[in-house]
Amino acid sequence: MSGAEKKSGRELGEEWWQTAIIEMSPGIIRLRGYEIQDLIGRASFPAVVWLMLRGELPSEDQASLLGIALGAAVDHGPQAPSIAIARMAATCGVGINSVMASAINVLGDVHGGAGEQALSFYGDIAVAIDGGATLDGAVSARLDRFFVGEKDYVPGLGHRFHPIDPRAPRLLELTRAFAARGVVSGRFADIAEAIEADVARRKGRKIPLNIDGATAVIYGELGFPPPLTRGLFVLSRSVGILAHAWEQSQQSERNKGPLPREWLWAYTGTPPRPFPGEDDAGE
Amino acid sequence: MSGAEKKSGRELGEEWWQTAIIEMSPGIIRLRGYEIQDLIGRASFPAVVWLMLRGELPSEDQASLLGIALGAAVDHGPQAPSIAIARMAATCGVGINSVMASAINVLGDVHGGAGEQALSFYGDIAVAIDGGATLDGAVSARLDRFFVGEKDYVPGLGHRFHPIDPRAPRLLELTRAFAARGVVSGRFADIAEAIEADVARRKGRKIPLNIDGATAVIYGELGFPPPLTRGLFVLSRSVGILAHAWEQSQQSERNKGPLPREWLWAYTGTPPRPFPGEDDAGE
Amino acid sequence: MSGAEKKSGRELGEEWWQTAIIEMSPGIIRLRGYEIQDLIGRASFPAVVWLMLRGELPSEDQASLLGIALGAAVDHGPQAPSIAIARMAATCGVGINSVMASAINVLGDVHGGAGEQALSFYGDIAVAIDGGATLDGAVSARLDRFFVGEKDYVPGLGHRFHPIDPRAPRLLELTRAFAARGVVSGRFADIAEAIEADVARRKGRKIPLNIDGATAVIYGELGFPPPLTRGLFVLSRSVGILAHAWEQSQQSERNKGPLPREWLWAYTGTPPRPFPGEDDAGE
Amino acid sequence: MSGAEKKSGRELGEEWWQTAIIEMSPGIIRLRGYEIQDLIGRASFPAVVWLMLRGELPSEDQASLLGIALGAAVDHGPQAPSIAIARMAATCGVGINSVMASAINVLGDVHGGAGEQALSFYGDIAVAIDGGATLDGAVSARLDRFFVGEKDYVPGLGHRFHPIDPRAPRLLELTRAFAARGVVSGRFADIAEAIEADVARRKGRKIPLNIDGATAVIYGELGFPPPLTRGLFVLSRSVGILAHAWEQSQQSERNKGPLPREWLWAYTGTPPRPFPGEDDAGE
Repeated sequence: MSGAEKKSGRELGEEWWQTAIIEMSPGIIRLRGYEIQDLIGRASFPAVVWLMLRGELPSEDQASLLGIALGAAVDHGPQAPSIAIARMAATCGVGINSVMASAINVLGDVHGGAGEQALSFYGDIAVAIDGGATLDGAVSARLDRFFVGEKDYVPGLGHRFHPIDPRAPRLLELTRAFAARGVVSGRFADIAEAIEADVARRKGRKIPLNIDGATAVIYGELGFPPPLTRGLFVLSRSVGILAHAWEQSQQSERNKGPLPREWLWAYTGTPPRPFPGEDDAGE
Repeated sequence: MSGAEKKSGRELGEEWWQTAIIEMSPGIIRLRGYEIQDLIGRASFPAVVWLMLRGELPSEDQASLLGIALGAAVDHGPQAPSIAIARMAATCGVGINSVMASAINVLGDVHGGAGEQALSFYGDIAVAIDGGATLDGAVSARLDRFFVGEKDYVPGLGHRFHPIDPRAPRLLELTRAFAARGVVSGRFADIAEAIEADVARRKGRKIPLNIDGATAVIYGELGFPPPLTRGLFVLSRSVGILAHAWEQSQQSERNKGPLPREWLWAYTGTPPRPFPGEDDAGE
Repeated sequence: MSGAEKKSGRELGEEWWQTAIIEMSPGIIRLRGYEIQDLIGRASFPAVVWLMLRGELPSEDQASLLGIALGAAVDHGPQAPSIAIARMAATCGVGINSVMASAINVLGDVHGGAGEQALSFYGDIAVAIDGGATLDGAVSARLDRFFVGEKDYVPGLGHRFHPIDPRAPRLLELTRAFAARGVVSGRFADIAEAIEADVARRKGRKIPLNIDGATAVIYGELGFPPPLTRGLFVLSRSVGILAHAWEQSQQSERNKGPLPREWLWAYTGTPPRPFPGEDDAGE
Repeated sequence: MSGAEKKSGRELGEEWWQTAIIEMSPGIIRLRGYEIQDLIGRASFPAVVWLMLRGELPSEDQASLLGIALGAAVDHGPQAPSIAIARMAATCGVGINSVMASAINVLGDVHGGAGEQALSFYGDIAVAIDGGATLDGAVSARLDRFFVGEKDYVPGLGHRFHPIDPRAPRLLELTRAFAARGVVSGRFADIAEAIEADVARRKGRKIPLNIDGATAVIYGELGFPPPLTRGLFVLSRSVGILAHAWEQSQQSERNKGPLPREWLWAYTGTPPRPFPGEDDAGE
């Protein structure tokens, strides 16, 4: 049997797992065409994130702005389900990888999806502007559609807890500074602020940009597609998840429940009843 | 400080975690109002599943039919992502609970959601019939809508691999037998078979009911809402996941990849290139 | 290129994923050698679990006893991390499969491993008896070793909350009844009760068998190896996890935290401080 | 009821979730005592990781070295179970957060734990040196113990695939450069190289440092405890997991199995057999 013929099935298998991300042979690892040893020590961690997701290296400024967005959303405390889950899981006798997995697993549409929704919303407006609409016109038209057909939280605006989310104005300020230096266009910052202003007119009060809206601005400025913003948020929040898991694991609690140990929960169901059709419940 | 006042914060906490499923005090566990020791040995495992999800005990026949559906979908082999993941995870040094978690986690809309979609589809038709439509009319109208606006796999019909899914006719046969004895109405079996017949007329060839369509018939007959069919499928497939995880863990493989160890993957990306702006790649 | 030669790579790939559990070809699914349509409606759900894990069908009595153990441990309320996680995850916008995955993932050594530890402990004693020791002698010797070198919870004994775990005596009673009918030997029940008695003598007070100790008795009587008891516990607790996830999903909460929404958490860390080396913190 | 009395239960609940990581009140978020808006744009992403895990800000050089280690281990291709799982999960209809969770969940003792083991091994030697042993003496004594009582892979040495892991020498070179500038002591680099040399003498051939051994050197130099190196590896590999999940999700595959779609798996179990005690298998 010749080598060429032997390879046939193997080739099919290897094609089944094809990728444009990583190339390997013994002693060689290349990411997106770069030798790994050329990247190590030259590309910053955010630059590696960018390269892996986008295929090309970012400029140093682009990598910095990405790192700023990643660093801004690492934690929002143990009242967030993801962080609470991390802390409880850390007391159950599983590895720190599994603690982290249980926690990031809940960063779904409701807990982790707001940035993705915000960036999609901005993107709709950007498309309208590209098609000739004015900024205010495009924003107004999109909000009209929103308030007719969609639900009543405008993506990226408002916060249950913070009257002003302290992360958002700082992120916008930095985006503007990067735009002033030509790193990004500032277009998504314009869109977000126009949305904020239009909603304020409609509601009669300002509902300020939140962290999801602000990071969506940055990810949009940097050219990331909406679904990746969820992935980037997972990377970011993983840091807080790890920190809380670690802090918890340094304590001696076992099977930490949500409430103090001597508390229970309120039972609201059917009162006690015998098993049906049994005269002698104790058997 | 009086007892009543002390309780106030605790009560709020305990209400935050209220549930109608389980009641506990020291020495006492009640599920849906039944003492746990009265259930143990009297209610079969499927009956306990039913009680927990529905709040009331099923009849013995209802529990049997539920058990039949649960037993039918336990495994479809390691080409299914869930099973492959279980086997790979079992070689990575995590507990069997985490192996199972990684695997059931992927039983999403595409891998695990077909039963839910099928039962929703049947439910739309059932509602139309309740509103006065004939079986064939309701089926035809729903399929008209489907072929205009939705995607081209009719939920519950057809299988990539099996010309006839051997589980489906047997499950229908048993549903009919239970209907003949008055355990269920047979209504969802009628709907599923009418869909199959109508699609055959439209396509000119029979696209037979699959396991998802057939278990959806049973879950519908038994009165489970569509989203629970996904949960029941997870319970069912967990058995196969556990069996494969266990079989794999009895072998000595470490970090089992998807392809034989000496194979790689095809690289399709950018050819090798130097790190930009560096004359001396070794620094 | 001949067919035989073409198959070579494919064969390697197919052997890489070999299994003794399931055989498939178009239209055919066999589990452990049985046609799936022969199993459906004949083997109960616990019997299918047994077949998948052990390779052979159990007797009807064996399947019943397995079902009893599976049904006994389905829930212990939302103060258990697994159940709390299920309820929180259900409010975060992920599928019910992912809700269940996050929850079972934490059934690790501490939260889910007690049954496995108890059965290993019983197994050590059974081996000593097989080697000629008396029941009491083997138990005493194993406990001597335990109290010298291991930690101070005897596996399978005692409960933080229940003075007597109401599930345990009922499970032992049923095990004895099955033993009286010759379904099992009663040997692990003897061992567990001898441990309980010996520990009572040492401590001067009874520390009664708990659910983990009692289900370990049954799994041991039925011939399951210790690591599978964790897997069986996962199957069992998955029922409660699903029930709580479902109940929670019927409510409108979003991002349910562990404490009532208006509460926070106590902060115990470093007091507020300026970013180092900055004169103007606002930049 | 007075405010003080009302707070009592709430205080208990808030203490139950206490943390030294994050402090919040409406409009204010502080991480480890720093206002979040002071950190954003000033602390790099690796610096935020450090702050969250350690409680204090690193120097710029320390943050750089941490970033180097994080960037080095992002991917090792789809033959690694974690990456394969990410790609398969991405075809199953779950969110990217759940895709990532399924994948990082398997970074257990075998797949993700080598760095932790290596750093523990180095730490044993460091302790011996602190107690007065020479470098070579401490290494030799630890290896003696290893080859007597432990398993035959020395933590941090050797690679199944790479004769020389291209990441390791580059990481050591950079560690040495940082040590030369006084950022770190170089002590763990010494230990790792002494282990490599001693093993080469024992085996008669060099078994070179791998990525786990090299990143463990860096994490040790920077003062991270061994269990955190697993968490840091999870953060790092999450980048590759996200990149592969994203690439896969851009394709149209559904339920991607481990082998090409037309392949199956080899069945090695019991041959076909009838259901026992049934004369008419078809019933």
